[in-house]
Amino acid sequence: MKTYPDCIPCFLRQSLEAARLVSDDPAFHEKILRRALIIASKMDYSSPPPAMGRDIHRLICSLSGVEDPYHQAKVRSNEYILGLLPKLRKQVAESEDPFQTALRFAVAGNVIDFGVKIDLSESDIENALHQCLEAELDEEVINLFREALKNATSILYAGDNAGEIVFDRLFIETIQEVLGVSEITFAVRGVPILNDATLEDARQAGLHEVAEVISNGSDAPGNLLPDCSPQFHERLQRADLIISKGQGNYETLSELPQETYFLLKAKCAVIAREVGVREGDLCVIRKAGETESSAAGTRSN
Amino acid sequence: MKTYPDCIPCFLRQSLEAARLVSDDPAFHEKILRRALIIASKMDYSSPPPAMGRDIHRLICSLSGVEDPYHQAKVRSNEYILGLLPKLRKQVAESEDPFQTALRFAVAGNVIDFGVKIDLSESDIENALHQCLEAELDEEVINLFREALKNATSILYAGDNAGEIVFDRLFIETIQEVLGVSEITFAVRGVPILNDATLEDARQAGLHEVAEVISNGSDAPGNLLPDCSPQFHERLQRADLIISKGQGNYETLSELPQETYFLLKAKCAVIAREVGVREGDLCVIRKAGETESSAAGTRSN
Repeated sequence: MKTYPDCIPCFLRQSLEAARLVSDDPAFHEKILRRALIIASKMDYSSPPPAMGRDIHRLICSLSGVEDPYHQAKVRSNEYILGLLPKLRKQVAESEDPFQTALRFAVAGNVIDFGVKIDLSESDIENALHQCLEAELDEEVINLFREALKNATSILYAGDNAGEIVFDRLFIETIQEVLGVSEITFAVRGVPILNDATLEDARQAGLHEVAEVISNGSDAPGNLLPDCSPQFHERLQRADLIISKGQGNYETLSELPQETYFLLKAKCAVIAREVGVREGDLCVIRKAGETESSAAGTRSN
Repeated sequence: MKTYPDCIPCFLRQSLEAARLVSDDPAFHEKILRRALIIASKMDYSSPPPAMGRDIHRLICSLSGVEDPYHQAKVRSNEYILGLLPKLRKQVAESEDPFQTALRFAVAGNVIDFGVKIDLSESDIENALHQCLEAELDEEVINLFREALKNATSILYAGDNAGEIVFDRLFIETIQEVLGVSEITFAVRGVPILNDATLEDARQAGLHEVAEVISNGSDAPGNLLPDCSPQFHERLQRADLIISKGQGNYETLSELPQETYFLLKAKCAVIAREVGVREGDLCVIRKAGETESSAAGTRSN
């Protein structure tokens, strides 16, 4: 997915938020903003939005010397959702359709995104869980996803944010138990970027207990394919089913040849228009594989 | 008031909106955005926000050849509110306190601002009228305003947007009738800028029937004092009471020596923090004159 002009004001807002996270000095905030404006004025809009997120984050790290501005926020998010895990696990197990309940929680988990809104509260998370249990998802897409999971031999699961990945862990546990899914590679970012999960965050959240966790080798908030490591590309090529969480992964994985399920909250008007839902919708979007000519682009929200 | 870093993403969003108003060509939108980013990267933040609004508007006009992108929107706004005028006038006349009712309508009129939100609907206007009739305004500030109007010998009324100025006309009619106010100079922009009222818009709205209407000689969305005409400065110096509508006027007139009443909707977090109200509040803010040491900064929202 390319970058739209409407993404630019949003990047600049994010730059300011990140600058304020690493420093209280208004002069530093202004310096970051002015440099980010110059970066944005020269950006190649044919690149996906995470390329700009990457460049601004590199700028903040190099000027501040802080390599992981969101470290504390990520640890807290993981801890908070881990605290909910026993209750959520019970809720999934006791539900009529554990696969669907865990899927809905995995989608709801995508509200945890400081890239879009830094002051997310616990009630926001509770609301998202409630919203996602009530949301009208397309039963056909859910059933296609269920079948695809049963038939897949190798799944690449592109993780997104710290905290959110605890919901992914619960979803993976569930599909392993109820659908007998075997090989899952869970890919995280190579370097801290925003609140996106890295190997360290994935370990804290216990993802290594349910999947093979790999780094994508990149410092972008997504999977910018030219930046990704040979290991990531090898797993991507091997996979016959892709699960992609969140906007940054959608923006960079929307043109793969494999059947892909995107689980995300449409957090801005640009992505909502791109995927054909309303802003704020929690959604499961199916992109058919290239070998499957019909049903391409079937979407559910 | 200086420009805050948080104003910059908002300026860029406005640039895009204005670019889309004058052209359907995405390449033109991108060109405007890139140039606006460069302007923003070099901007002097000690200038009030309208300086940036002015520079971006000049850019759009020079690159598009369109001098007044908001012309049609302004005419429609004026026409729409003029259509409501007989009903509003009756409502004011029949109310318990016509001064206060007309004041509340004048504040509500400030929701009509395409600089902040271009797709304002008629129901937004109806809601604002309702909201402002119900809003808890500080009775003390309203009474001080009433007394100040009775005692003033020369009033400078800084108008803001087309459409909104019809409410200002009703307010001026009312204070002339119930308070016997005499000399009022109503100042508008010198050149079309966003949806701000110019002489032409003020004439359409009938302001010349109730006040002497002058141009401030400037093309900024406010009264940037170094840009304003000698006539504007002469009226400003002569005035012993200032009425200032909206954010752009607040941002450029907040440091005058005269007693000033700011009537505005706090449309963003920056202005809300600056004036000490919540974002979205409709408010009447009093700034005492320099000769009056006490009561300075009394605010009402």
